[in-house]
Amino acid sequence: MKQLAQKSKDASKKLMKLSHEVRRQVLNELADNLLKNKEKIIAANTLDMEAAEASGLNVAMKDRLKLDDRTIESMAQGVRDVSDQKEVVGVFQEEFVNSSGLRIKKQRVPLGVVLMIFESRPNVVVDCAALAIKSSNAIILKGGKEARHSNEILGNIIQNSIEKYLPKECVQVLASDKREVVNELLELNQFIDVVIPRGGEKLIRFVHDNAKMPVIAHFQGLCHMYLDKEADTEKAIKLVLNAKTQRTGVCNAIETLLVHKDLLSKVARNLTHELKNKKTELRTDKEFMIAAGEELKAATEQDWATEYLDNILAIKTVESIDEAIEHINLYGSYHTECIVSNDQKACDEFLNSVDASCIMVNASSRFNDGGQLGLGAELGISTTKFHAYGPMGAEQMTTTRFVVVGDGHTRG
Amino acid sequence: MKQLAQKSKDASKKLMKLSHEVRRQVLNELADNLLKNKEKIIAANTLDMEAAEASGLNVAMKDRLKLDDRTIESMAQGVRDVSDQKEVVGVFQEEFVNSSGLRIKKQRVPLGVVLMIFESRPNVVVDCAALAIKSSNAIILKGGKEARHSNEILGNIIQNSIEKYLPKECVQVLASDKREVVNELLELNQFIDVVIPRGGEKLIRFVHDNAKMPVIAHFQGLCHMYLDKEADTEKAIKLVLNAKTQRTGVCNAIETLLVHKDLLSKVARNLTHELKNKKTELRTDKEFMIAAGEELKAATEQDWATEYLDNILAIKTVESIDEAIEHINLYGSYHTECIVSNDQKACDEFLNSVDASCIMVNASSRFNDGGQLGLGAELGISTTKFHAYGPMGAEQMTTTRFVVVGDGHTRG
Repeated sequence: MKQLAQKSKDASKKLMKLSHEVRRQVLNELADNLLKNKEKIIAANTLDMEAAEASGLNVAMKDRLKLDDRTIESMAQGVRDVSDQKEVVGVFQEEFVNSSGLRIKKQRVPLGVVLMIFESRPNVVVDCAALAIKSSNAIILKGGKEARHSNEILGNIIQNSIEKYLPKECVQVLASDKREVVNELLELNQFIDVVIPRGGEKLIRFVHDNAKMPVIAHFQGLCHMYLDKEADTEKAIKLVLNAKTQRTGVCNAIETLLVHKDLLSKVARNLTHELKNKKTELRTDKEFMIAAGEELKAATEQDWATEYLDNILAIKTVESIDEAIEHINLYGSYHTECIVSNDQKACDEFLNSVDASCIMVNASSRFNDGGQLGLGAELGISTTKFHAYGPMGAEQMTTTRFVVVGDGHTRG
Repeated sequence: MKQLAQKSKDASKKLMKLSHEVRRQVLNELADNLLKNKEKIIAANTLDMEAAEASGLNVAMKDRLKLDDRTIESMAQGVRDVSDQKEVVGVFQEEFVNSSGLRIKKQRVPLGVVLMIFESRPNVVVDCAALAIKSSNAIILKGGKEARHSNEILGNIIQNSIEKYLPKECVQVLASDKREVVNELLELNQFIDVVIPRGGEKLIRFVHDNAKMPVIAHFQGLCHMYLDKEADTEKAIKLVLNAKTQRTGVCNAIETLLVHKDLLSKVARNLTHELKNKKTELRTDKEFMIAAGEELKAATEQDWATEYLDNILAIKTVESIDEAIEHINLYGSYHTECIVSNDQKACDEFLNSVDASCIMVNASSRFNDGGQLGLGAELGISTTKFHAYGPMGAEQMTTTRFVVVGDGHTRG
């Protein structure tokens, strides 16, 4: 592992000099090669799918694992989108001349070597390799054993596409499923600049507790939607349905709905009806049940603190916007928090008091996604404020340094 | 400590809502109060200076500890400079409308609670408190026991100046000199968002190895200056003298000089003469000695890897700019690296290949300083690329989040 990481570090140094044009060309060739190798990719993926079937992997996992014509085309398009995005490295910004006449500039530079540890989805290999190439970083991709064959073929296609222009060690895919491999990698802070874990909370917690280098991670997506007393009822119901049921089991779906007491009589019945049509299990407080006019499962303290990742919604009535904010700041996970209201003052209050990587005003939580927020592909979502907060794209794989140009300037 | 950190967290939440105008006013009152309390500050500082004398603190430490009329005026001016700087929190940037018609904005927000652990200099209390107020962060300042009385009075003046407008726990100064206090604080990642150690390498290493929250630090300042074959000899000599001798014992002084072999005959004699006038001890390779025409102390491998923090300079002859770059990338500390050359191609090559938080082209390394680089006061210098790279000001105490405004927009 040490040798492998060292190779990444060496490769990353050569990446610094590559022009944007060359990196665009590499990405476009990669997109072409993904399409040209569709059959090979599907054949490798079939082996993984058969093993998944044999080992009894659940439906959601199998859904994430599967590659077909459509998903391969969409991966290739993602690579082209990243290629078309504005340049993020080498760019100078914030130039000024100081009082001694020095020209001072800030320049965006890559982080160096990024380690990605992830589960299931083979598209992560392609998305993250593309973002790494875009941002002139070397990347080590350690996937789960369930996607071994898929990850391996994708890694080969990437290395074949880049080696004409850059050291192929810029992108290294590890197919080994040994736990020790991860342990070893997490020690190598002399070569690896940052680690990004993506997957279940257990994996993320393990990486966080054991990595010797900085970690960017999101632990949980315990997202809320608050329906203010000045909410438009029709939009409110539409937004709750979308945020909870458009796709369950994802981090940007809502888990708890907070309803202002003055709005209850206007929404409780219809909302309950619509959610039941979507087979959503409701766990609510007494007040909501009364307003809904039917017996529902009673919510407990535990429900406010649970990320279901399932078609279940906890509902709580609040006396005021302040109570909603307090509840969110107590149970929220710094991921996505939404307010539905036509009152600008309430929206501002929410914005100024709620701490989250993404605040949605009259929009579904499901929009908190790198693609939707203009980053092209996404590396993951950070729920810690350090270095990156929210969805991470190529720019979040960079930092800025100072460049100072003088003409023999001395100090003092 | 837990209660204290919790108070900081609570206070930080209230800071989010304060307008720029109020924060400016707080800072200006703080500057006034520093001047009004000059005598009290000097009296407290005198107690520390007496203790320093009694305990035999070295001259450099005493120099950093001492406060007088001039240093207090300069602290007050620093606070006003920070107050006058552009707003760094709440500001919206990079606004656009996505394909579904959502308005997407990035907004700068504070980190939360910053813990600063530092040695000697009492001005750190005032500089960092000012930057924290500017950026709407709460701050805990843990100084060294040698500055106990000075830090305590400065902490009181700050709390008295702010409590009319904000919870006084926004700035908490810890005068206790118990090591356990630091250990306890480094565990409290539920309240403290980031820790910044400033001082000797031992302190920094300790914090880095023990903190449960992210750390921003600089470990070493092993800075180089490379004199290219196309360097202007007069400017080159002036720059070396300034970068080494204007102030020794600081992290942005150079420790190793790299000279292109073709320049040797033009600079070695004069440079040796001038440095000897400044009482600089030279440790050089054979080639340099020959060109200088005199016997000098021979440099060993160990010299290339040493941050002297003293009036000593190691000198090495290089065959080419590539050898210079290789040497820097091997021994450098990601702090400040300088090239002296009139050849634009060589400067570009250096810029594209050297990895450091600040690259100086024909300018002294001593300019790598928050004040000089336009940040007002500085929180410290980061030599890791994560979150901040180089001198850190108020902006480096913030992050950006997404704010998305729709009109009932749903996904899919």
